[in-house]
Amino acid sequence: MSRSESIARKQARMIKALQTIGAQIYDQIENREFPWIILQSRSTDNIVYDPETRQFVLGSRTIRRHARNIRHIRPFAQLVWTAWFAKELLRLRKTSTLREVYYSARGQRDIEFKDQDESNNIIVDLETALNTPREEFHIFSEERSAIFGDLTIEYTVPGYEGKRLNLTSHPDGVMIGPAVTSAELIETSADKVLVIEKGAMFTRLVEEKAYEKFNAILIHTAGQAPRSTRSLIHRLNKEMGLPIYIFTDGDPWGVHIAMVIISGSANAAHLRGLTTPDAKWIGVWATDILKYKLPTENLTDLDLKRLKELLKDPRYKGELWQKELKTFLSIRKKAEQEAFSRYGLTYIVDEYLPQKLETT
Amino acid sequence: MSRSESIARKQARMIKALQTIGAQIYDQIENREFPWIILQSRSTDNIVYDPETRQFVLGSRTIRRHARNIRHIRPFAQLVWTAWFAKELLRLRKTSTLREVYYSARGQRDIEFKDQDESNNIIVDLETALNTPREEFHIFSEERSAIFGDLTIEYTVPGYEGKRLNLTSHPDGVMIGPAVTSAELIETSADKVLVIEKGAMFTRLVEEKAYEKFNAILIHTAGQAPRSTRSLIHRLNKEMGLPIYIFTDGDPWGVHIAMVIISGSANAAHLRGLTTPDAKWIGVWATDILKYKLPTENLTDLDLKRLKELLKDPRYKGELWQKELKTFLSIRKKAEQEAFSRYGLTYIVDEYLPQKLETT
Repeated sequence: MSRSESIARKQARMIKALQTIGAQIYDQIENREFPWIILQSRSTDNIVYDPETRQFVLGSRTIRRHARNIRHIRPFAQLVWTAWFAKELLRLRKTSTLREVYYSARGQRDIEFKDQDESNNIIVDLETALNTPREEFHIFSEERSAIFGDLTIEYTVPGYEGKRLNLTSHPDGVMIGPAVTSAELIETSADKVLVIEKGAMFTRLVEEKAYEKFNAILIHTAGQAPRSTRSLIHRLNKEMGLPIYIFTDGDPWGVHIAMVIISGSANAAHLRGLTTPDAKWIGVWATDILKYKLPTENLTDLDLKRLKELLKDPRYKGELWQKELKTFLSIRKKAEQEAFSRYGLTYIVDEYLPQKLETT
Repeated sequence: MSRSESIARKQARMIKALQTIGAQIYDQIENREFPWIILQSRSTDNIVYDPETRQFVLGSRTIRRHARNIRHIRPFAQLVWTAWFAKELLRLRKTSTLREVYYSARGQRDIEFKDQDESNNIIVDLETALNTPREEFHIFSEERSAIFGDLTIEYTVPGYEGKRLNLTSHPDGVMIGPAVTSAELIETSADKVLVIEKGAMFTRLVEEKAYEKFNAILIHTAGQAPRSTRSLIHRLNKEMGLPIYIFTDGDPWGVHIAMVIISGSANAAHLRGLTTPDAKWIGVWATDILKYKLPTENLTDLDLKRLKELLKDPRYKGELWQKELKTFLSIRKKAEQEAFSRYGLTYIVDEYLPQKLETT
């Protein structure tokens, strides 16, 4: 079976799942019932940390969204409209963004979302109903990150089916959008993936040929990794067997960028395929700030508050995390990835990363 | 003469200019003078709008940064160090970012910048002293935008010299970083450039094959266009003779994204080659909001304040600008690019853009 057949099948499966929701509603109406849809509850008390999968998951409680209930009728209608919209996207092989979905509803009487939050929330409902991330029914966020390295992908988007690109083609990096997200991963000579928070460091590592030196694919998250990037990291780990190393700023926000790639977020407790529990955070650690005598800034009150929250978070139970969070709290300092430039632009590639990749 | 020779010559010319600064300082010291450097003044009263070049320029006033003056000795030393750092970047054919420059100085006794602002400011001094944008001495910002379309470029960065890429290779777009910025523009079949503020709209236009339909190269600015992107737009207009059309959100910030591409900013009054005075802003106009009955949001107090500032700005003297700014103020509404989704995802490509490109 060719790869594009498998994509076509995936697409057909998604359309089928959406049609099933529609067919149920038709049946309910024919049986003279007020139609309803069952979803797992996403309320805080139904989100639990699952040590086995090492991510947040939803508990067993469900809710029934019911057209009989006057409070439910609006979100019920919105959910049905969104399911229809997703089916159209799949059928026409188009993608859309969260913002476009919101505006697309603006023409629809009685469906119209009052704001973007309401519309985003209904899209999450649809993800929950289908147990599938919205990217699979072609709804993306506006965020974009980038990738560079010896990885050959094969596109499945219209007009590019079967075309291949090796991701060393463009040294500034190629964007991770719908085309990369839906591509097949064909071949790589790399033996690891290095995920980098900041664009400056990504460019530095391309320029210093870190991809050759460390035999790595480089991914630039541009801050918190968008979900499509987390899904790509997951696939590089699962499908290609590549270990993942994450390199962020040395502050609570950098730590959490790594954690969300590793263990996901409570917001995505209804989804699978976005986490990479075996990925490793290699720095900048709080203990690196001391060990490498990095230039620092003081932690702000907001940073300190965030660190205390993370200390209590079940995802941070491990020894490394506890030690580093506590070190941040005791030294009350933070350092950026670029801080290594103090020792020259190549120090990061010549000294720091080799040490970290070896010992982590 | 081959293209890469011309790049090598440009590089050599930059190094020469930097060495000239150094040689002057040596001479001054040998003549037992306290060394100094002359710069055009960048104080507000020396920035004037030049109707001829249709951009802000510096007036004739100069300042002498002097090692004899105790207030000047620190910025003088920082400027000399930064010039040395730039020369090293050129010599080693490396690039760097504003942030890395700041940190690189952290190891240098008595040079150290107290914050990023101080360091950025010295880099602007060096641009002024050399009359050259920092990108030419290889210092970039962290921002990244993206490009897609039938344009073949030839790289000049190390490891890629002479390699070519056609920018339709990757449908999510390729990043505009040091490699694109320094590339030669070889060939295009496009007859215009469409510059787009938002990633969602960029993806929409790629997906709807707007590049074929309008025979256009697409550029995604991701908000305010980074300087390297403005320089690329300038080159596409000058070197390839392509007209430029800019499509932004319909609000004062969108208007100003267009204006900075067209006429530049006061901050860059010391530079040339970043503006494109003949570029056209095609929307979303305030009058489009009325004409197309777009979904809107109310202007905030901040939006209104900004509109009043723009009304008085010399760059906004033209009839179109005055009319649109006043319309925003009278309707007190704004609309995003994605607002056209109200009429379906393809309306923008089937109706709005063809009308605008024809009439603007």
